[in-house]
Amino acid sequence: MITVQVYVSLKQGVLDPQGSAVKQSLNTLGFSEVEDVRIGKHLTLTIDAEEGEVDIEERVKQMCEKLLANPVIEDYEFTIEEVVTS
Amino acid sequence: MITVQVYVSLKQGVLDPQGSAVKQSLNTLGFSEVEDVRIGKHLTLTIDAEEGEVDIEERVKQMCEKLLANPVIEDYEFTIEEVVTS
Repeated sequence: MITVQVYVSLKQGVLDPQGSAVKQSLNTLGFSEVEDVRIGKHLTLTIDAEEGEVDIEERVKQMCEKLLANPVIEDYEFTIEEVVTS
Repeated sequence: MITVQVYVSLKQGVLDPQGSAVKQSLNTLGFSEVEDVRIGKHLTLTIDAEEGEVDIEERVKQMCEKLLANPVIEDYEFTIEEVVTS
């Protein structure tokens, strides 16, 4: 079993209305030191394959480009963690 | 200027309908090896303070507990990165 951490974030320069709303709320709550907030997705995938059995890196890249990230406005990166279950 | 990476994720045992929907879609797209998907938030905060000036750790903890995470169903963790601007 392999665990993959995927981080999807808006590209630089793309407006982040959700992040701006959270920044406003934090400032209103008294956290005036917060200058900027950018919000992205963090996905944890559990994949049923042994290392070497499948080209995990290539498969996850395809998953990101087909579904998990919008290539027009989002960037993605991922880390693969080997989890050995007894 | 300090950058803080905040990761908010659903607690173990809390149902993740969004994650299940993404899993179904990935399986439908042919990625049958995907067994589970959990989705969380990844926030990047830019804070206007010099290290030591404010107890950043305590302030970010308060931000998470007051706004960024729902303590009933979500866990949070964060990493503080010193960014020195010229």
